[in-house]
Amino acid sequence: MVSAERLRSIIERVERLEEERKELAGDVKDIFTEAKSAGFDVKVIRQLIKIRKMEPSEVEEQETLLDIYRRAIGM
Amino acid sequence: MVSAERLRSIIERVERLEEERKELAGDVKDIFTEAKSAGFDVKVIRQLIKIRKMEPSEVEEQETLLDIYRRAIGM
Repeated sequence: MVSAERLRSIIERVERLEEERKELAGDVKDIFTEAKSAGFDVKVIRQLIKIRKMEPSEVEEQETLLDIYRRAIGM
Repeated sequence: MVSAERLRSIIERVERLEEERKELAGDVKDIFTEAKSAGFDVKVIRQLIKIRKMEPSEVEEQETLLDIYRRAIGM
């Protein structure tokens, strides 16, 4: 036998949190719309946010590798 | 020329929202851990949450199709 009350509580809490996550995703989307309107390149901003999350040494390593791979395929 | 202040504001707002989303994802994970400890099957709960988001007619249609496909491949 499952505890219906416990199960319902679990489901409803997850649904509430997922709803909040969805709202936040919408807020992020709005900010990118604002950024685009202000003339910024959204892809570049996303890349910048990714880079800010990384360690500087990791960024440098990736940039070096990107450069090496580019040359390797003649770009 | 880009407006550094505007750009910084955009980036920081997105980062803050993404941080909140991450925290909520962690809260969801905690609830599923709790569910598992209470003896519930987490996969089934996830499926239940998906079903609750769907229209009843859509659920019925999918279940009918699943049944038909199962028979088709002799399951």
